[in-house]
Amino acid sequence: MAPESRAKELHERSIVIDGLNVSRWGEEAVYRHLHEGGLTAINATVAVWEGTQGTLRNIARFYKDFDTYSRYIRQVTCLDDIRKAKEEGRVGVIFGFQNSSPIEDDLDLLEVFHRLGVRAIQITYNDLNLVGAGCYERQDVGLSQFGVDLVAEMNRLGMVVDLSHVGHRTTMDAIETSEDPVWFSHTNPRNLCDHPRNKTDEEVKALVAKGGIVGANSFPTFLARGYESTLEDVLDVVDYWVGLVGIDSVGIGLDFTELHTAEWFHWLMAGKLKGSTVFPLPYPVPLPAGITRADEMPNLTAGLVGRGYSTEEVQKIMGLNVLRLFERVWKE
Amino acid sequence: MAPESRAKELHERSIVIDGLNVSRWGEEAVYRHLHEGGLTAINATVAVWEGTQGTLRNIARFYKDFDTYSRYIRQVTCLDDIRKAKEEGRVGVIFGFQNSSPIEDDLDLLEVFHRLGVRAIQITYNDLNLVGAGCYERQDVGLSQFGVDLVAEMNRLGMVVDLSHVGHRTTMDAIETSEDPVWFSHTNPRNLCDHPRNKTDEEVKALVAKGGIVGANSFPTFLARGYESTLEDVLDVVDYWVGLVGIDSVGIGLDFTELHTAEWFHWLMAGKLKGSTVFPLPYPVPLPAGITRADEMPNLTAGLVGRGYSTEEVQKIMGLNVLRLFERVWKE
Repeated sequence: MAPESRAKELHERSIVIDGLNVSRWGEEAVYRHLHEGGLTAINATVAVWEGTQGTLRNIARFYKDFDTYSRYIRQVTCLDDIRKAKEEGRVGVIFGFQNSSPIEDDLDLLEVFHRLGVRAIQITYNDLNLVGAGCYERQDVGLSQFGVDLVAEMNRLGMVVDLSHVGHRTTMDAIETSEDPVWFSHTNPRNLCDHPRNKTDEEVKALVAKGGIVGANSFPTFLARGYESTLEDVLDVVDYWVGLVGIDSVGIGLDFTELHTAEWFHWLMAGKLKGSTVFPLPYPVPLPAGITRADEMPNLTAGLVGRGYSTEEVQKIMGLNVLRLFERVWKE
Repeated sequence: MAPESRAKELHERSIVIDGLNVSRWGEEAVYRHLHEGGLTAINATVAVWEGTQGTLRNIARFYKDFDTYSRYIRQVTCLDDIRKAKEEGRVGVIFGFQNSSPIEDDLDLLEVFHRLGVRAIQITYNDLNLVGAGCYERQDVGLSQFGVDLVAEMNRLGMVVDLSHVGHRTTMDAIETSEDPVWFSHTNPRNLCDHPRNKTDEEVKALVAKGGIVGANSFPTFLARGYESTLEDVLDVVDYWVGLVGIDSVGIGLDFTELHTAEWFHWLMAGKLKGSTVFPLPYPVPLPAGITRADEMPNLTAGLVGRGYSTEEVQKIMGLNVLRLFERVWKE
């Protein structure tokens, strides 16, 4: 078989899980592109800055979409749902938060959101919240007591602790505090691109020592060549992480933001600081050629094949490693 | 005139401001005791852990009480209102927060609360919030970017930054960041009682260097003899602060919690941690003999006279120093 056909066939039969997608939900094109990209499941962000009510509204809309767009997507709340998504040829949607803001000041709401299908929570988003500090905050701090209790409750419920946008001390504290392995769902190496949103080798080694997984991100701000980046830079990230922690601890989290408006990007970056953003973005954000949208996912598999990864290795990176993480944490 | 009569007469003609009262509002007895105690004004806590809606409800109830109990109390939103309260023989109620939780994640709500009458905000309460750390938090941190912006907006609006329950680094950061003098409304010396809620000499000197005021607290947990304390221990606190920073920088903030239930005290101490409290309290809390309730306020004036303070000095401690702080910050 020619390399191209082999990669295509490999992609089609693999379990492909994107560890982070924060696109404009409700748009038919977004779901169609996921479907065309051969995705098995995605960690779909349903809250960034929202509080309880805003998050419930986002989730409620998704329930409607599971019905309206059932030809493309289905909800995933357990491992068996991922298997079904693959069999059905539909994209499994795992609800995830990029912040703990949805529970506001009430840890009991974690169980409410778990029952609604939320299976991964990034505990801080860029700045300080009730749990700890984010990676852009002007000062660093570890987990608060509320944060320690949050991690314990997430462990009890079986929700994955995601530390991608989390500040250094809170990251290290959460890795140590969590009884379950934790996740850098969409995170690149500081050594390839010196950006506060990227993680140091120390952090990733600590993550992996506890059984965690790190996912390569395609958002250009976090790639070595910035807005000049291509698919090759994303593959460089995969190579770097595999070189550092081995083939069994690396996944992907491409951070797609399809169809969002300039206003949304400003809200994303500025959050409650309103006027000011630490890292302003151009609009539209120039994405890495070859991996700009979910329907280009097969290019990633082909790229990994091109870099010499074996079939088994490609499958681990594209989904099986993250699946194993879910298996250990979700407990169902 | 006999010393007792002199003290009584002095109390009656003085402007007496209690820098912190967190009693059970809505109870007629609470307002009556404030009135009997000869108070001119109090910083009345209308939020501890509440978010926006809960705080609005507390404020709304107070507006009703200003009508129902107009023989005892009136609202105070400016210096002229304090003068009127004194003339009318009614107790002026200044709305204050013990937390920045009422604005949730929206700094624009500061102006909403300012228009409703809030004139002092303690920026953190015991634990970590969006602004910084409290004094019982497991880790210390300075102001967040949101916290820096909050202090700037409070300066702009003319609201007093209160740092009593605030952690060390956030305290020092806020003193430095604020353009206006700030307040330790109800705070005792770490050197008299080694409790994390009490402040070090370093902190109080930094406060006073920027024109701030420190108020002596009568809550027994923060006094040298704990639940065995009496009025004499509160007077010791005044003496200590005056010895450290001089007669022009000391006030009172007695922290009365009249008529509250055991359940309320648990909520106060545990907050969002629910089950656990860092410092559990007995119920009822044994209060210092001689200064257990607002109607015993004249005992404090008499005690200060007994300790040898001049008429002018007593009046500064009992209200004029805090009044001068309001004058500098409120701007109306």
